[in-house]
Amino acid sequence: VNRDQLELWLREVAAGRLSPEAALERFQDWHSADLDIAQLDLHRELRSGLPEAVYGEGKNPEDLRRIVERLLTAHGRVLVTRLARDSAESLAASVAGCVYRERARLLTCGEPHAAAAGLVAVLAAGTSDLGVAEEAAHCAEWFGHRVERHYDVGVAGVHRLLQRLPAIRAARVVLAVAGMDGALPTLVAGLVPAPVVAVPTSVGYGASFGGLAALLTMLNACAPGVAVVNIDNGYGAAVLAHRIAIAGSLPAAQDA
Amino acid sequence: VNRDQLELWLREVAAGRLSPEAALERFQDWHSADLDIAQLDLHRELRSGLPEAVYGEGKNPEDLRRIVERLLTAHGRVLVTRLARDSAESLAASVAGCVYRERARLLTCGEPHAAAAGLVAVLAAGTSDLGVAEEAAHCAEWFGHRVERHYDVGVAGVHRLLQRLPAIRAARVVLAVAGMDGALPTLVAGLVPAPVVAVPTSVGYGASFGGLAALLTMLNACAPGVAVVNIDNGYGAAVLAHRIAIAGSLPAAQDA
Amino acid sequence: VNRDQLELWLREVAAGRLSPEAALERFQDWHSADLDIAQLDLHRELRSGLPEAVYGEGKNPEDLRRIVERLLTAHGRVLVTRLARDSAESLAASVAGCVYRERARLLTCGEPHAAAAGLVAVLAAGTSDLGVAEEAAHCAEWFGHRVERHYDVGVAGVHRLLQRLPAIRAARVVLAVAGMDGALPTLVAGLVPAPVVAVPTSVGYGASFGGLAALLTMLNACAPGVAVVNIDNGYGAAVLAHRIAIAGSLPAAQDA
Amino acid sequence: VNRDQLELWLREVAAGRLSPEAALERFQDWHSADLDIAQLDLHRELRSGLPEAVYGEGKNPEDLRRIVERLLTAHGRVLVTRLARDSAESLAASVAGCVYRERARLLTCGEPHAAAAGLVAVLAAGTSDLGVAEEAAHCAEWFGHRVERHYDVGVAGVHRLLQRLPAIRAARVVLAVAGMDGALPTLVAGLVPAPVVAVPTSVGYGASFGGLAALLTMLNACAPGVAVVNIDNGYGAAVLAHRIAIAGSLPAAQDA
Amino acid sequence: VNRDQLELWLREVAAGRLSPEAALERFQDWHSADLDIAQLDLHRELRSGLPEAVYGEGKNPEDLRRIVERLLTAHGRVLVTRLARDSAESLAASVAGCVYRERARLLTCGEPHAAAAGLVAVLAAGTSDLGVAEEAAHCAEWFGHRVERHYDVGVAGVHRLLQRLPAIRAARVVLAVAGMDGALPTLVAGLVPAPVVAVPTSVGYGASFGGLAALLTMLNACAPGVAVVNIDNGYGAAVLAHRIAIAGSLPAAQDA
Amino acid sequence: VNRDQLELWLREVAAGRLSPEAALERFQDWHSADLDIAQLDLHRELRSGLPEAVYGEGKNPEDLRRIVERLLTAHGRVLVTRLARDSAESLAASVAGCVYRERARLLTCGEPHAAAAGLVAVLAAGTSDLGVAEEAAHCAEWFGHRVERHYDVGVAGVHRLLQRLPAIRAARVVLAVAGMDGALPTLVAGLVPAPVVAVPTSVGYGASFGGLAALLTMLNACAPGVAVVNIDNGYGAAVLAHRIAIAGSLPAAQDA
Amino acid sequence: VNRDQLELWLREVAAGRLSPEAALERFQDWHSADLDIAQLDLHRELRSGLPEAVYGEGKNPEDLRRIVERLLTAHGRVLVTRLARDSAESLAASVAGCVYRERARLLTCGEPHAAAAGLVAVLAAGTSDLGVAEEAAHCAEWFGHRVERHYDVGVAGVHRLLQRLPAIRAARVVLAVAGMDGALPTLVAGLVPAPVVAVPTSVGYGASFGGLAALLTMLNACAPGVAVVNIDNGYGAAVLAHRIAIAGSLPAAQDA
Amino acid sequence: VNRDQLELWLREVAAGRLSPEAALERFQDWHSADLDIAQLDLHRELRSGLPEAVYGEGKNPEDLRRIVERLLTAHGRVLVTRLARDSAESLAASVAGCVYRERARLLTCGEPHAAAAGLVAVLAAGTSDLGVAEEAAHCAEWFGHRVERHYDVGVAGVHRLLQRLPAIRAARVVLAVAGMDGALPTLVAGLVPAPVVAVPTSVGYGASFGGLAALLTMLNACAPGVAVVNIDNGYGAAVLAHRIAIAGSLPAAQDA
Repeated sequence: VNRDQLELWLREVAAGRLSPEAALERFQDWHSADLDIAQLDLHRELRSGLPEAVYGEGKNPEDLRRIVERLLTAHGRVLVTRLARDSAESLAASVAGCVYRERARLLTCGEPHAAAAGLVAVLAAGTSDLGVAEEAAHCAEWFGHRVERHYDVGVAGVHRLLQRLPAIRAARVVLAVAGMDGALPTLVAGLVPAPVVAVPTSVGYGASFGGLAALLTMLNACAPGVAVVNIDNGYGAAVLAHRIAIAGSLPAAQDA
Repeated sequence: VNRDQLELWLREVAAGRLSPEAALERFQDWHSADLDIAQLDLHRELRSGLPEAVYGEGKNPEDLRRIVERLLTAHGRVLVTRLARDSAESLAASVAGCVYRERARLLTCGEPHAAAAGLVAVLAAGTSDLGVAEEAAHCAEWFGHRVERHYDVGVAGVHRLLQRLPAIRAARVVLAVAGMDGALPTLVAGLVPAPVVAVPTSVGYGASFGGLAALLTMLNACAPGVAVVNIDNGYGAAVLAHRIAIAGSLPAAQDA
Repeated sequence: VNRDQLELWLREVAAGRLSPEAALERFQDWHSADLDIAQLDLHRELRSGLPEAVYGEGKNPEDLRRIVERLLTAHGRVLVTRLARDSAESLAASVAGCVYRERARLLTCGEPHAAAAGLVAVLAAGTSDLGVAEEAAHCAEWFGHRVERHYDVGVAGVHRLLQRLPAIRAARVVLAVAGMDGALPTLVAGLVPAPVVAVPTSVGYGASFGGLAALLTMLNACAPGVAVVNIDNGYGAAVLAHRIAIAGSLPAAQDA
Repeated sequence: VNRDQLELWLREVAAGRLSPEAALERFQDWHSADLDIAQLDLHRELRSGLPEAVYGEGKNPEDLRRIVERLLTAHGRVLVTRLARDSAESLAASVAGCVYRERARLLTCGEPHAAAAGLVAVLAAGTSDLGVAEEAAHCAEWFGHRVERHYDVGVAGVHRLLQRLPAIRAARVVLAVAGMDGALPTLVAGLVPAPVVAVPTSVGYGASFGGLAALLTMLNACAPGVAVVNIDNGYGAAVLAHRIAIAGSLPAAQDA
Repeated sequence: VNRDQLELWLREVAAGRLSPEAALERFQDWHSADLDIAQLDLHRELRSGLPEAVYGEGKNPEDLRRIVERLLTAHGRVLVTRLARDSAESLAASVAGCVYRERARLLTCGEPHAAAAGLVAVLAAGTSDLGVAEEAAHCAEWFGHRVERHYDVGVAGVHRLLQRLPAIRAARVVLAVAGMDGALPTLVAGLVPAPVVAVPTSVGYGASFGGLAALLTMLNACAPGVAVVNIDNGYGAAVLAHRIAIAGSLPAAQDA
Repeated sequence: VNRDQLELWLREVAAGRLSPEAALERFQDWHSADLDIAQLDLHRELRSGLPEAVYGEGKNPEDLRRIVERLLTAHGRVLVTRLARDSAESLAASVAGCVYRERARLLTCGEPHAAAAGLVAVLAAGTSDLGVAEEAAHCAEWFGHRVERHYDVGVAGVHRLLQRLPAIRAARVVLAVAGMDGALPTLVAGLVPAPVVAVPTSVGYGASFGGLAALLTMLNACAPGVAVVNIDNGYGAAVLAHRIAIAGSLPAAQDA
Repeated sequence: VNRDQLELWLREVAAGRLSPEAALERFQDWHSADLDIAQLDLHRELRSGLPEAVYGEGKNPEDLRRIVERLLTAHGRVLVTRLARDSAESLAASVAGCVYRERARLLTCGEPHAAAAGLVAVLAAGTSDLGVAEEAAHCAEWFGHRVERHYDVGVAGVHRLLQRLPAIRAARVVLAVAGMDGALPTLVAGLVPAPVVAVPTSVGYGASFGGLAALLTMLNACAPGVAVVNIDNGYGAAVLAHRIAIAGSLPAAQDA
Repeated sequence: VNRDQLELWLREVAAGRLSPEAALERFQDWHSADLDIAQLDLHRELRSGLPEAVYGEGKNPEDLRRIVERLLTAHGRVLVTRLARDSAESLAASVAGCVYRERARLLTCGEPHAAAAGLVAVLAAGTSDLGVAEEAAHCAEWFGHRVERHYDVGVAGVHRLLQRLPAIRAARVVLAVAGMDGALPTLVAGLVPAPVVAVPTSVGYGASFGGLAALLTMLNACAPGVAVVNIDNGYGAAVLAHRIAIAGSLPAAQDA
């Protein structure tokens, strides 16, 4: 709720066009749907640009179905992440219009978001990073962006990356997914002017410590301009990429 | 060096307008200045948007002076970070046109970059975070952005943040600086649609472990859209903010 | 055993009404029941307010049954935590009067404790934290408190929390359960005067490191008044809440 | 700001007794005092029971003086923690009515809070833990509580603790401060019914890792009822103790 | 090989009673049995008091059988640790004279070592620590010691320990096994003059981090005289206890 | 206080030879001396074999003097560890009969303990470990043991250790002090039958992490029989060595 | 691509013998084969001496088959690491000329590399380290080296190592594989002049933390000359050994 | 001592040309010089190729002088690492023929080792890494190698590295020194066939955790062929480089 709206309501109350009770009610009812186990944040899209997504892991089928249906009703679309094939199939059986992508473990129901400006380049260092990269890529597409994939361009054979540079330089935001040494994003950030969203993966031998090594590498990137997100968090990377890509087109930002 | 330029040169070589020796030379001389102790990356601005900055900590005065002078010659401006007052004063004595900001520990010589689009909001959770916040804010201003500061808006008194929301929502990118629990960025990301650059600081009691606690909080932000950088890295946050703010205006990105 | 009792016994011994041997015996027999594998601490309730609970995980069925029966005989009630459905069912088959709550993985046999003063508010940041939150809520109810649940009120949509504030402010102690960034308790502690018991959960992406991120956030809460307990320890949180809620009514404390 | 107050204002606005502009103003001016470097949270006491304290470490003298004076004006008292002797003396020179306690590194200006119910027992395991224990004890006294100190009662000589038990059992809340193995709180929690606030200190040989060992011991206390706070955080422990001690007397909690 | 023996051989060689080749041979053949996959250290008992034991986990059945048989031939007895019931049964089917203890996961073949002086007290903090405690207790018995078990004497109900003190004080060495807060050994070491071997276990809630919390507690024991071994290492604790118990009876030590 | 003594007193009380008040008094007065800042544990020697030592670091001169004098009165001797030269000199100026050893940072006042059986061998891996090794060696001598030092026998030149083996094998307990890789104790434990007390030191390059590397090596020693103490804790190692050396001569242990 | 080649091409372009387009093409097509999911680095052997190997874990059968076949076509041989028996068998069914080694989890197709100079000694501390040691040994053999295995020569029985020394000293590079305390490499490096490649394994009790303890030991080896690789990374150790063994025979290095 | 020598001596003893006493003596006296505080390992050069170096940090001047003089007598040269300017100057005042290099903190006395085959390339990622790089470079020169320095070639401007590739490819072994993200070695290892010795430095912002980030990056290098040494350990890297460079020329290795 921004200041303008608050002021508008206060004026309506002052003018007697809105009773104090109704104002309170409006506040309460508007932004969330209470399902006992969840208070769905229906207001989120208005506030921060994208509706609430559903984290699929560990939810029981019935809870999941209720949440998906309620969000679908409210927004006309819903995105479920980290969903196993089994759960996806049972969900798709009871909710119409859903598509499942196994490698990315994503389920989408309804239509994607309207097309949004800004090409997103998704890079993956190795073939073991594809699951996370695909999660990021599909989410970015779902949010309305054109996505170009550049996979297996890790620093062990740096020519593979250099070769793709012209294409990568065309992107408004670059997502670089890497496990093991996690060195890809720092290299890329030294070669392009776009912001680089770095996604560490949990892929690696013992001393990668479940992605910690890659995470630290990225946080310590000697080329500035790297934005780090959580380990294996392809979805979060895509949301960040989306916010970056449309940053210049936000109404408020335009005025500034 | 992008593909177009390479092709152009190859064509010139093919046409006999450029000898192979000259082409090699051009390549070599163009992008770096060798000072024995440093190979200044003069090519960096062309490649990734901003010239190389100088990390001031631990450099001896003579090395520092040579590096600053060489970069000043090449670019007409130079930015030195993490510089103690002593070093700044001795440097300013031999290099003309330098300004030092103590709280931010920044020295700038020459004129700032040309004005760039995109308001940058810099938030700090507490007064102990001001050093890092000021480093970020001054760097962003140096890169040409208009900056608005919102300090001491930490979650212990959340109304201070809510009160500033309308102003913050006008920014194209939000920098949130916080130590201790590091909870500010996650809260902000749930309230605005702009990308939030989170900067953990090393401020806190024992179990903050030098900023590790705030860093982990930010990486685990339950509101997506948070870009994390290294602990106390105000400069890096500003570079990332700059890249984000101009992402929509990059020539290549425009075509895409 | 407090000083008064010791003095009383010494006087009885002095008066010849109690033989030294009997005094020793009394000491020995009174407070524990030896089952070879366990020395049940029957004295605990008298000493610290609540009887010993049984940690169900990893105990074999026969050991579990013997322990539960012995405690039931001594106290008339028993609480078993972290119990899988299988074990619960086989136990309920041989011990009468037991109820199992699956989400909370709790088994209770006998009647709950007498009603105790002090409303306990149990908050959960997200739906994935419900298992731990339900463990805490049911335990608090078992200890005699009235409990109000406020689930899915995490900081990603802070209005959901603000909306519930009046209700939460009515509680004598607030339990805030959160995984991922663990930011809920610090926010709450800035908004209410009651003590906030913070329970980190192991829910989250890679860099949550099994709840470590949330734990550190809570320990570094910039709003003072937060009491942190172990990761996923809903039972421990409830015991602490109980102690807090009745702190003002303890006989000794009354005198002080 | 609670619901009742908000409703009252809305009614005044509805009745035309308060203009929307004035209502907005009131909101803005009421709860914080903007000093550029700090937004003092004057509203905090109303909201969460105690006014904002000042963290003295690392603040420059001038900033510190301005903050202390402003808070003193607003509340009639102010508490500064982690203040070195030098800073305390220069501050006391310009602000009247201040007292400094060196071992606790605390400065207080003005009168203490009104007497509050609930004896607070402060335990310290060893003499090296006294600085933190004194910070906690003096803060609790400042908040209006009667405090009893039991120092050097660590588990290496457990009879020292057992001997003090009757006195400790009279407390409404027990603060147990310990470094090294941090075993004191778990022992105490098994012997008294009051909540035990555990404060790990950074005292110890190498593998204490700056208090981490004691912190983990306390989080893993096998006796439930232990509330853990940050390493060396005597002030935070006192605030928590205060909240616990008065939990039963809060107006809202009374109604519940 | 000690100096006396070396000198003796050299003298025999000098006297021509032993050829250099034979001396070399003797050296080579004496102390190890080569099985390709293992070089059994048959010399170990002579050198350090106890023969090599077999770590059962992860060995394939055939390798295990060959190793056990070879050691049995050499020493007349063998001890296998960390052995699953399945492997134990298949091994016992092909090797005669073996006994398996499931809770301790130990297999012993042949007769125990000759009775050795020194009562060993084995303490366990809770019932979840019994597996490790039983491993330690049975190993100590296998090495020839009389063992007394004191289980479930953790600090949550410290009277259970105090009650057993006279018996524990009779031991020449005390083994204290504890998970969670790991506070038992430090308490015991403050109450008895015997060396206390502390064994952390991996039992506990999230922030025990697989026994790390208990391990650190024990290393930081504020009562000196605590010897720490690896997490869950009951066997290692028993070997250490054995060495301690017989330390006064070693021939060399006698002379000293 | 053991059972026999308690029984004796009770019998005296029963016989009217001791009033209950006097018995309580005796209990209270006997074991501790209250100095406000410290409750000296005068009872410790009787209970666990050695009197309380004083940890010198961070204590202020006056507190230190009072504690030392009180212990000296009670026991006729006192040991102060981790004491800087300055503090030692000012202390020696006011307390008679004190000796300071700088490398070991130890101050002793009065006569050493009576000679105790059992040669103690103190090994140090490198010259940088000498401070810790000397602390251990002098403490062991203070406790009455004969000590032999074998310094600079680290595994980088293993022949230096092998050469000393016959001498080392004569010890009843071996203390092995090592930083860096911490490999000395595991090697020694494979070569002698005596218990090996391993003391990690904080000596080493970056990845030694203040002694953590050596600590872990010692805990994971593949030769069983290694007792690990805290990093740089020479005093603790000596106490443990003392307990081990006299374990066979304890009265209770003798009976067992 | 080295400088000479680049110059040659530029000269050909200058001479009109190579069109700019063809030069670009050549660059592009030469070094990688794009399989969508992978960009095979066919150029790697020329550049860094050995062709790309395939990491078998977690790849689906079809992807694996395509990659193996493509590499086999390009190089005439392929090495697959970390391959489970199941996957190996299904792969061997469709690709001819493959051999699987279960203990090492390696699959090789085609002929080994040409014989290369330099004996490689592979040492393993214990029998539990054999899997990793065999992976290293077989890989080294595949790369053309003669390999000698010395297994179960850990420091718990150091004579087993000393006995093998003459043989080990004949090696050009020594691979030392060890879990638990990881002390073997430091000992070896003090005894031979060859470089020692240290491979920590994840074998050990709790405080080995998945190989971290051994890793740190090796990094802190007090004998210099130890090269550390990742935990359980037998393949990486073999590649490093290969590079070391042939370092003296590289054409460029010869000239230097 | 190798087998041949032992056999030779045994034969001399057998032939009566050497008495057993003399043989024992020879053994004892030969390899170490006992200075009380240190047992100098004079035998090391024969055994492992390079004489013992002296770690200068923390040694007192007198000890240092005695050690340096004794080694100088034995070997005719000595290398002191990590030596502050002060200590170096006082040492050079009493020992003739010493040279100090401040940036590298190295002191050398006497002549360097005889020239050894094998060019060593020393790379440094940034100017802050020069201290460590210079330590490595000067040590390698001291060991007799030709060294080429390539400084400030970090991945933030990868063209600086690519430009130097032909020169780097001429080296027999490459030392890559890097702090922050530590990505340089992995990149280099993908571009050259020589072994790459990776040296992490402690340079970096907060989350570099004293070099841990760079260390983990290097251990997880996705290009195999990287040998990791301890943080800031330039000396150790040079010893390893020396061993690698001469690996092909070792007499034993030649025979193999």
